[in-house]
Amino acid sequence: MGDCNKKGKFVTIEGCEGVGKSTQLRLLKEYCESRGINALFTREPGGCEISEKIRAMILDPGNSDMSAMTELLLYCAARSQHTKEVIIPALESGVTVFCDRYSDSTAAYQGYARGIDAVTVDALNKAAMCGAVIDCTVFMDLPPDKGFARKGGAKDTDRLERETIEFHRKVYEGFKTIEKNEPARFVSFKAEGSKYETHEAIVCALVRRGIL
Amino acid sequence: MGDCNKKGKFVTIEGCEGVGKSTQLRLLKEYCESRGINALFTREPGGCEISEKIRAMILDPGNSDMSAMTELLLYCAARSQHTKEVIIPALESGVTVFCDRYSDSTAAYQGYARGIDAVTVDALNKAAMCGAVIDCTVFMDLPPDKGFARKGGAKDTDRLERETIEFHRKVYEGFKTIEKNEPARFVSFKAEGSKYETHEAIVCALVRRGIL
Repeated sequence: MGDCNKKGKFVTIEGCEGVGKSTQLRLLKEYCESRGINALFTREPGGCEISEKIRAMILDPGNSDMSAMTELLLYCAARSQHTKEVIIPALESGVTVFCDRYSDSTAAYQGYARGIDAVTVDALNKAAMCGAVIDCTVFMDLPPDKGFARKGGAKDTDRLERETIEFHRKVYEGFKTIEKNEPARFVSFKAEGSKYETHEAIVCALVRRGIL
Repeated sequence: MGDCNKKGKFVTIEGCEGVGKSTQLRLLKEYCESRGINALFTREPGGCEISEKIRAMILDPGNSDMSAMTELLLYCAARSQHTKEVIIPALESGVTVFCDRYSDSTAAYQGYARGIDAVTVDALNKAAMCGAVIDCTVFMDLPPDKGFARKGGAKDTDRLERETIEFHRKVYEGFKTIEKNEPARFVSFKAEGSKYETHEAIVCALVRRGIL
């Protein structure tokens, strides 16, 4: 472990299901490409070969007997490999890293929604992050009821998307609590306008913070 | 989590590769069967469907890029599921549980030998054990040089058996340190006589402790 001797900035994007994270990441990618910004777009769980294997295990509907603690430890195992193999080397070489979900998703889903205590979740997140530090978290602040309505009638749902609306409400409350506890790191977007309006607001916020 | 409201006794068997754990477990199983003792024999990593999938991932020689932290988190994920799904229900119904490797292997291999700090290893082991408490640890106290000689020229080695002798010496030193720190829980056997002599010594020790 030890501190990450980084030069690039590390940005995570968080929020409930169906809030438009993928769309915003695609627009951010186009923005970076058009301006020659050296950026890496990656996602969790996954982002490298071993972590994708772990991701497949977590999301497999056949593993419905998986305990909350096992799920938490698998997310952290995937994060650990992804961070050490992909994120830290990129940051060290000066690349800006955008990650679709990271430690706050673990705290919101496995901590607040599944009920694993914060001390355990924080200790595991710390171990999994291998010394990486998040510079900014873009939070797509949309309650799950609206997010689900957006996503519509997708049928090929994975194990987590099959959870009840009550579960996703707890996830949302978890994100709101983290946002309240870490105002300096969080920058939040209500995503009420068009996707392009939200994109412009995100770019402005990241420019102001010296990230873009 | 929370405490495990158990009635059965929980025994773990630990030691380096090739020290005769499997043989002793087989003899213990025959002993329990012949005396009508309600005992469960299980192993780590593995012991239930999800944990066996995680075991396959850990031991796959194709995953040679796996970081030490990822390996540690995967062992703990497998342990968490195995403990909640198999070990705790057995203990709660009064069954004596014998487990081939458990938390001390994690401390010896991922902590002492791979160099992950003790605070992290202890926090992860605690999370993975889901409140289970080990009543007795049978330690097969044979240095790795002798153990390897016993195992001979096995060719189908997994990722951990392929480690250098220096790695396995560190594992052994790790076990010896845990033994020193937890003399009340450990009962150690030099395994210098025949397998039957060692078996009798183990049975005597477990009878004295009220486990058999």
